[in-house]
Amino acid sequence: MSTSADERAARLLLSIVGEPGDPRVAALVDQVGPADAVDFLQARGRRGELGAALAQRIAAARPEETLAQAERRGLRFVTPADPEWPEALGDLDQVPTLHERGGTPVGLWLRGALRLDEAVAGSVAIVGARSATTYGAAVAGSMAADLAEAEVAVVSGAAFGIDQAAHRGALAARGTTVAVLACGADRAYPTAHQALVGYIAETGLVISEAPPGGAPTRIRFLARNRLIAALALGTVVVEAAVRSGALNTANWADALSRTLMGVPGPVTSAASQGVHRLVRTRNALLVTDAADVLEAVRPVGRQPAGSGTDRFLRPRDALTALEQEVLDAVPVERGAGADRVARAAGLPPETVARTLADLHAAGFVERSADRWRLVRQEPFDAPAEKEGGEFVG
Amino acid sequence: MSTSADERAARLLLSIVGEPGDPRVAALVDQVGPADAVDFLQARGRRGELGAALAQRIAAARPEETLAQAERRGLRFVTPADPEWPEALGDLDQVPTLHERGGTPVGLWLRGALRLDEAVAGSVAIVGARSATTYGAAVAGSMAADLAEAEVAVVSGAAFGIDQAAHRGALAARGTTVAVLACGADRAYPTAHQALVGYIAETGLVISEAPPGGAPTRIRFLARNRLIAALALGTVVVEAAVRSGALNTANWADALSRTLMGVPGPVTSAASQGVHRLVRTRNALLVTDAADVLEAVRPVGRQPAGSGTDRFLRPRDALTALEQEVLDAVPVERGAGADRVARAAGLPPETVARTLADLHAAGFVERSADRWRLVRQEPFDAPAEKEGGEFVG
Repeated sequence: MSTSADERAARLLLSIVGEPGDPRVAALVDQVGPADAVDFLQARGRRGELGAALAQRIAAARPEETLAQAERRGLRFVTPADPEWPEALGDLDQVPTLHERGGTPVGLWLRGALRLDEAVAGSVAIVGARSATTYGAAVAGSMAADLAEAEVAVVSGAAFGIDQAAHRGALAARGTTVAVLACGADRAYPTAHQALVGYIAETGLVISEAPPGGAPTRIRFLARNRLIAALALGTVVVEAAVRSGALNTANWADALSRTLMGVPGPVTSAASQGVHRLVRTRNALLVTDAADVLEAVRPVGRQPAGSGTDRFLRPRDALTALEQEVLDAVPVERGAGADRVARAAGLPPETVARTLADLHAAGFVERSADRWRLVRQEPFDAPAEKEGGEFVG
Repeated sequence: MSTSADERAARLLLSIVGEPGDPRVAALVDQVGPADAVDFLQARGRRGELGAALAQRIAAARPEETLAQAERRGLRFVTPADPEWPEALGDLDQVPTLHERGGTPVGLWLRGALRLDEAVAGSVAIVGARSATTYGAAVAGSMAADLAEAEVAVVSGAAFGIDQAAHRGALAARGTTVAVLACGADRAYPTAHQALVGYIAETGLVISEAPPGGAPTRIRFLARNRLIAALALGTVVVEAAVRSGALNTANWADALSRTLMGVPGPVTSAASQGVHRLVRTRNALLVTDAADVLEAVRPVGRQPAGSGTDRFLRPRDALTALEQEVLDAVPVERGAGADRVARAAGLPPETVARTLADLHAAGFVERSADRWRLVRQEPFDAPAEKEGGEFVG
């Protein structure tokens, strides 16, 4: 029987000697627990494939030294037994491997003062091309800033391009941002981002599955991408060429049943092609700003309904696009039945009936004898005319 | 009992005196036929709402003179009794009115030598903002040119902006383009487009529901939009602000169960906001080029399967995005089971199984003992490596 200290020591060793996201390690831990997994690899398992692969690393490992060194560099090691371990990571055990990476990490190395579970609760990942255009970087930056202002943490990978713009946008808005690295959490890749990663650690969190000092390798980027997707409620891809690594994160988000979103761009821009493909073939949601993202990741009751006067505190601009379309079709003076509103809006009757009920709850429309009309005192702006007075060709 | 000559004369009169798309006229014709509809309006119905509204116009109408004048201007009048009347227009009787316009036209005025049904068979509508950006106009123009080269007629409304670019693109590629006008088919609106409309009539077709000389009015644009949507297999919206008239055409396309498509653009461009909203809230398909449009409007058997050597005539670039993704995940040397291909592609197993069967039929993959691999002699290009050798952060 292993104590929790034994478990922790075993996970520490496995984190140091195993490759991030190696599904064989995760499966072994899942089957026999971390302590027996270490025993197995050190003794009986040495003749097995995995034991042989890790034998040299196991022999060379000095876990206590690594841990002490990590602490000197401001890192801590957390495991699924720690209270701050996010439940969301458990979903990784439920999905197949991608590019031969997968499974729950045996542990994570953290740099930063925040609790991991609190830092990533309700977070959104923004990822995309390293070779971003100025358009993509601007969109990623302002989306991240707006999410941060809405107290949604922004998760990304601290790469050039979109990742950098997303972290910076969140930092500029004094929000929480979380960087998940393929190298050790004490390093930065690209090295030009050492300062950026440092800022993130000061107010947010830097995370890695690789041990301190670990180098960024191709396979570790693939393993890292699964953590970004798993930690966030949804992943927004802002620019990605057709073969961009960001699409690997998108695949993970999709496999993990997280909300997959994409920001469109000019069809003439190669940097947007991968995103358009995600929308076309993967049912990624098209999102154009932070409001669209919030609507997607908080679909129900995203605002407390409120009552009395405060139900008017929700401005018309905070309505969803659908709600606005329906509202535009509701008459000001004489009321109209839901069917007639549906025809005027060109929307399915059942959708309109449901939306009218929401608009009613929010205080935008009133009902009498099955006829809907705008409330007179709608405080924010007058209903715009649906089609302008000029020719609408 | 009315003869077909009576019917035609009745439709001619109704076309001259009725407002395009007035659903009351369409309903009356639907119920009693055109000849009795005229009788009704001239005699008993004069006291009714519609009869009263049209009484003055009926008294002033000189149908034979209008027809003679139209012929001098190169127009002809066609009715549902003519062989060239497209069946597609009958769908207008099956859908509710939008903005109080709807129903099958009593007849149409045509300018141009093509048969109407042949001109619009398999056609695609490209519509959008009059205040298009250079980006939108460029995309509309090249999409129209590519569709025209694929022998798909391009339907639009001859307005400034996107419409103009679409017609010009099709004309430049020496393809068929069809302009549906809100004013008489002998006129042009805007008048600056007189020459453009003339070119369209020379090689394509100019269509109007309004009689010769008819002025473009706001309500006629709304009526006209339903014809654009009905005549085409699908409607592509290229740029539309949130309250653009092009969205009215989109509403018609949706109501008529035509394929509704939208071209994305920068989220920072107001001209693309209406399109993004269509994709977000109306399930409009995101399309980026003519190939995407063709895939959407010709979903099944868009290319004859072929056999023997000619099955290789379909280049890899002609595959759908989904087919290319699956193909990228099929190993070159040792085969892999469909499940493994699905994992590598990050796609659902059933989708991959279906796509592999298609790729097999097209000669791109081969199967032995439940394992799939690329055919060796794939003639067009080598499979690209899925993730580049560099870091894929």
